[in-house]
Amino acid sequence: MNPMTRIAIYDTTLRDGSQGEGVNFSLQDKLLITSRLDELGVDYVEGGYPLSNPKDAAYFQAVRDLPLGHTKVVAFGMTRRRDIAAEDDTGMKALVAAGTPAVTVVGKTWDLHVREVLGVSLEENLRMIGDSLAFCASRVSEVIYDAEHFFDGFRRNPDYSLQTLRQAAEAGASWIILCDTNGGSLPEEVAEAVSQVAREIRVPLGIHTHNDGELAVANALAAVRQGARQVQGTINGLGERCGNADLCSVIGNLSLKYPDFEVLAPGKLVRLTEVSRYVYETANMNFRPGQAFVGASAFAHKGGMHVHGVRKIASSYEHIEPSTVGNERRILVSELSGKSNIAEKLTEFGLDQDQDLLSRVLDRVQELENEGYQFEAAEASFVLLVERLAGRHDKRFDLRGFHVGVAGQYGRASMTEATIKLQVGDVFEHTVSEGDGPVNALDGALRKALEHHYPGLRDMHLVDYKVRVINARAGTAARVRVVIESTDQDAVWGTIGVSENVIEASWLALVDSFEYKLSKDARGRTAAAPKSPALAAESLS
Amino acid sequence: MNPMTRIAIYDTTLRDGSQGEGVNFSLQDKLLITSRLDELGVDYVEGGYPLSNPKDAAYFQAVRDLPLGHTKVVAFGMTRRRDIAAEDDTGMKALVAAGTPAVTVVGKTWDLHVREVLGVSLEENLRMIGDSLAFCASRVSEVIYDAEHFFDGFRRNPDYSLQTLRQAAEAGASWIILCDTNGGSLPEEVAEAVSQVAREIRVPLGIHTHNDGELAVANALAAVRQGARQVQGTINGLGERCGNADLCSVIGNLSLKYPDFEVLAPGKLVRLTEVSRYVYETANMNFRPGQAFVGASAFAHKGGMHVHGVRKIASSYEHIEPSTVGNERRILVSELSGKSNIAEKLTEFGLDQDQDLLSRVLDRVQELENEGYQFEAAEASFVLLVERLAGRHDKRFDLRGFHVGVAGQYGRASMTEATIKLQVGDVFEHTVSEGDGPVNALDGALRKALEHHYPGLRDMHLVDYKVRVINARAGTAARVRVVIESTDQDAVWGTIGVSENVIEASWLALVDSFEYKLSKDARGRTAAAPKSPALAAESLS
Repeated sequence: MNPMTRIAIYDTTLRDGSQGEGVNFSLQDKLLITSRLDELGVDYVEGGYPLSNPKDAAYFQAVRDLPLGHTKVVAFGMTRRRDIAAEDDTGMKALVAAGTPAVTVVGKTWDLHVREVLGVSLEENLRMIGDSLAFCASRVSEVIYDAEHFFDGFRRNPDYSLQTLRQAAEAGASWIILCDTNGGSLPEEVAEAVSQVAREIRVPLGIHTHNDGELAVANALAAVRQGARQVQGTINGLGERCGNADLCSVIGNLSLKYPDFEVLAPGKLVRLTEVSRYVYETANMNFRPGQAFVGASAFAHKGGMHVHGVRKIASSYEHIEPSTVGNERRILVSELSGKSNIAEKLTEFGLDQDQDLLSRVLDRVQELENEGYQFEAAEASFVLLVERLAGRHDKRFDLRGFHVGVAGQYGRASMTEATIKLQVGDVFEHTVSEGDGPVNALDGALRKALEHHYPGLRDMHLVDYKVRVINARAGTAARVRVVIESTDQDAVWGTIGVSENVIEASWLALVDSFEYKLSKDARGRTAAAPKSPALAAESLS
Repeated sequence: MNPMTRIAIYDTTLRDGSQGEGVNFSLQDKLLITSRLDELGVDYVEGGYPLSNPKDAAYFQAVRDLPLGHTKVVAFGMTRRRDIAAEDDTGMKALVAAGTPAVTVVGKTWDLHVREVLGVSLEENLRMIGDSLAFCASRVSEVIYDAEHFFDGFRRNPDYSLQTLRQAAEAGASWIILCDTNGGSLPEEVAEAVSQVAREIRVPLGIHTHNDGELAVANALAAVRQGARQVQGTINGLGERCGNADLCSVIGNLSLKYPDFEVLAPGKLVRLTEVSRYVYETANMNFRPGQAFVGASAFAHKGGMHVHGVRKIASSYEHIEPSTVGNERRILVSELSGKSNIAEKLTEFGLDQDQDLLSRVLDRVQELENEGYQFEAAEASFVLLVERLAGRHDKRFDLRGFHVGVAGQYGRASMTEATIKLQVGDVFEHTVSEGDGPVNALDGALRKALEHHYPGLRDMHLVDYKVRVINARAGTAARVRVVIESTDQDAVWGTIGVSENVIEASWLALVDSFEYKLSKDARGRTAAAPKSPALAAESLS
């Protein structure tokens, strides 16, 4: 038996993915996603373009303190500008200054593009590639060369495009990545070009595809079959225009359909669905139900014949076993969702032996999901739910009511005030606070009421707040889902509230956040924290 | 020069597509979609499964009166049940009774499935195929045989699966369609199997793929290259689990990338985007912005480098000319963009000659982007900004102030009330409204104040509402970005508000939405609408 060939996975969700319409990651988002990708076992994470904006530069600073087990963080940049030494080029300097174990340099391959868009001679472009790669290779241990527009260039002028690759190889590139930048190539063209390059160039090859012809995944697979040993893409196929190759599909296919190729470490594939949903939540985007492998409908059966078939033989209408990628079968008529996930969760809390609890949690989760709850990014709310149903939750305060008022006058800052009534044991608290907004005012009033009872609350603060309308059709009267992320010195946790009223939904998420903090402090640091303590330091820095 | 090979397009949006989660067509929907598909020039429209439900039977009755220019309507059914004559089988009778010029019969190809799911002998399955096809072929002029699970069956038992095809061919099938029912096959497997079948079977072949490996389009193209002459799929890839092959991508690729193949009649391809959006609208589904060829983001450029490149040479970052499929290029205004994006926008409004305006717009956009504004999903706010700076904006009301109060009592629904003070000319308005939430209450109060001055506002309503914290570092006191999407009978527009206060940010976005509607109504439909009416619902996603 031949040993399996290892295919490296290079994620550019944080760079190319963030070019997608409506995609915007905060620094905190980027760090959290980096950790998730590391846990999944992605080999490279392209964190950003240090020259392009200060947020990316701050990321490369902060990511140094992130404990990563497997992933190499990569900084991205372009070849040096024309007629300047690489060591004098601000982009080159910024790239090396990122201090990452690997850098990626993108250069031009297509002669037309070199002359008409870049506006330099073909010779100068070769020098730009050579100088830039040599400069990086002498300072960074791994230099990846992205050959932009490779397939378009190769189709029109194969000699010149091969010359650019040779230049990169000679200057010390560790990898040469063939990019289908416009996303319009066909699998047979990709296969043919990669096989020709593989005969000419000794440096390991990679593939970077876009989905403009809905062929990004097929093109990536075609390249791997012809010898590419690295695949670049993004989680959920985020990216400009039609997006990049969806790594969920690339990883799913390579892991499960090609016995000769190996991606991710053993035991990691099962996290694929979770990572996909985490990225959607973080990007504040809706899931795509029909997404291959990881979509909520990917193993949903509606047709009666299909349901019948699947019950008899799963492979009747399922190309893979859903749990291998952490997804699950759903029978749409009977809404039989979630059981294995929830059982899995209870195992995490050491509660898996209790079948009665399992079914009560399942019922409650289904009920809440029907109301619009979604616990992927709100594990703290899920923990509280389980604690309550398991009878392990101590109620530390009783809410009585709240009031929020916002007054705006044209041309002046608006004024917000919140009042809260609650009870801690026998003590009634009725407090009021102003705030920059309603959540801030409610947070202030809650603190006034609770901090002298529970001083630990002083360590906690809110780091993120996301709101989404769930049923957009009904306009402003639709339901609203609020997810709040909070932190203290050793953890970050997410809580959720759903209501027709954004203030009430915020209030529910906020109260869960306080309850989780109190519950967490009471049990010490031993029990299930939804995110690793290691990350906390990052989000505070 | 060789003559082009004609590839028939077979649409099953109304049958396989309606198996998708959340997809449901009324009888009227089905008839309207049939007409649209006929206008596009689709060769076959599979209208439904007459036996399965009364709506489908009614469709086949009604569709006879629909004037169709090109499309053949097809009824779908299964092979006869076991141990019964085809002429006594209710399914067979219903199929023929549909009175369509073509019928499709699906039969089993995979031995395991025949025995374990269908529960009949391999021989009886062959007889079921033969009898059913012969029965139909003697009564309907064109009989299409769908070989279910062909690729799975062929992989395990090639002999038996070929036998089933031969049986269908001998019994009079006009077409044999190889189905990748589970959607898990790889392009190289499909290519290999189709080429083998093409050597064995003389009847014209077709291909029917599903997208479970995100390879449905690649698989369809691979089959066509090996001799398949019909492609089955659905508009927008609707369908069970991950859906069927998206005909938009199949048609786009075959029309524009393969000079040897011909699909649709000349002049029809330009309708592709419109048909895609029509089907989404009819199915009451959100558009997928990143959809290949027809998505609203498919030719949207955000990165400054890309915008710069596209202006110089369109093919820099576009694999096809967007207008060939009826789509359009969009330059997104975003933080990643520079002057070239904004200049492009002004060109759209016919304001590109005014260099002074350009630099004032640029300054203002940069200032607002620093405050957290982002115009890519809020083009209406950008239009208002340009109108104001260009001195083309008529102020139709003056805001004086607002107040919002939300009161919650534990265990009861919360109560929300908003008041508004504003002036229309000399008339002061001071109104109050309750609402499900603050935005709904503000919307209600604004309407009370403005609708009797501007009755056109009654046509408008809000369709989506998104909230995001921009600078997560500062916790609840961070800035909040609200994007509201609104619609009337002929357009959809997005507006934005940014503030530390979610209510104020919502209020700003809401007021922009009202102002945009009034400005749009005042100038009629002639001037720069950010999205053309035909594309109106694009941003519902």
